[in-house]
Amino acid sequence: MASERGLGMVHVYTGNGKGKTTASLGLGMRAAGHGFRVLMIQFMKGDIKYGELEAVKGIPNFDILQFGRPDFVDKENPERIDIDLARKGLEHARGLVNSGDIDMLILDEINVAVEWKLVTAADVIDIVMSRPKGMEIVLTGRYAPAEFIDLADTVTEMKEIKHPYMNKIMARKGVEY
Amino acid sequence: MASERGLGMVHVYTGNGKGKTTASLGLGMRAAGHGFRVLMIQFMKGDIKYGELEAVKGIPNFDILQFGRPDFVDKENPERIDIDLARKGLEHARGLVNSGDIDMLILDEINVAVEWKLVTAADVIDIVMSRPKGMEIVLTGRYAPAEFIDLADTVTEMKEIKHPYMNKIMARKGVEY
Repeated sequence: MASERGLGMVHVYTGNGKGKTTASLGLGMRAAGHGFRVLMIQFMKGDIKYGELEAVKGIPNFDILQFGRPDFVDKENPERIDIDLARKGLEHARGLVNSGDIDMLILDEINVAVEWKLVTAADVIDIVMSRPKGMEIVLTGRYAPAEFIDLADTVTEMKEIKHPYMNKIMARKGVEY
Repeated sequence: MASERGLGMVHVYTGNGKGKTTASLGLGMRAAGHGFRVLMIQFMKGDIKYGELEAVKGIPNFDILQFGRPDFVDKENPERIDIDLARKGLEHARGLVNSGDIDMLILDEINVAVEWKLVTAADVIDIVMSRPKGMEIVLTGRYAPAEFIDLADTVTEMKEIKHPYMNKIMARKGVEY
């Protein structure tokens, strides 16, 4: 988006409510619709069941890459492969930031990856700070570290006011993934 | 989504933060990626500048219709055309709900259209309640009326923690629209 205004902001979507990943998908859709090049890197997710992986194929300039496994990561005792994948994802992000080949970079669930200690906040901040002037960065996930909130231009908390699990409804295809 | 589970929930995205429309776009993207038929009706918007209008063209089974004008609606004194367009949008929604031709219906900014008194909460609730069992409904916008919150299965408040207008940055292409 550099060509337009020479400014790229940092957005954080956090909180316990719905809509963090989907809001960043919608943001990516919006940006790609204007011809900007968008990449979402999904941390701690590695599963073709996510509907967005199929839908994004139809949108030029919008891609999603997953650096994770289908299994849940154990917060107290993450496996070596979980750490390796998250770090690989971050290295991929660093390469893209250095290349300047994209206009919007979405690091989906990166806040959780930091909280789970798969990667460090300092590593993420280093990448964010080294971005080309016009690159927009989006950081999503619960538990956004205070350093990300300080760094960000916009921070939105998705706050759960009412949720369906009271009614014992499980995560459903096409909505939660 | 009826075929999958015979259940369709009602979601509300509200609050003063970013991500209400984009979260519903992402939800639509996710659902369409699984082959569900999604329609977003945008109230109080009628402008090709929105990036999502272009991006959605590439996603099968996902369409966006606008029932509004490019101009802002004056809350205290909406013009006749604003009221007519909003009501037309709602009638279109009613037709779709009755036909059962879609799986997810997103009424974008409907909460604001109710607050602005372009349509009534009762009319919206009537449509929501008459939906086929499997149809998912998403209601977005600030000022969600209490009746919508009562009715909904999930309610998420997008809460602004930090915003860029402090720095006097205007709405930017590819992010805010």
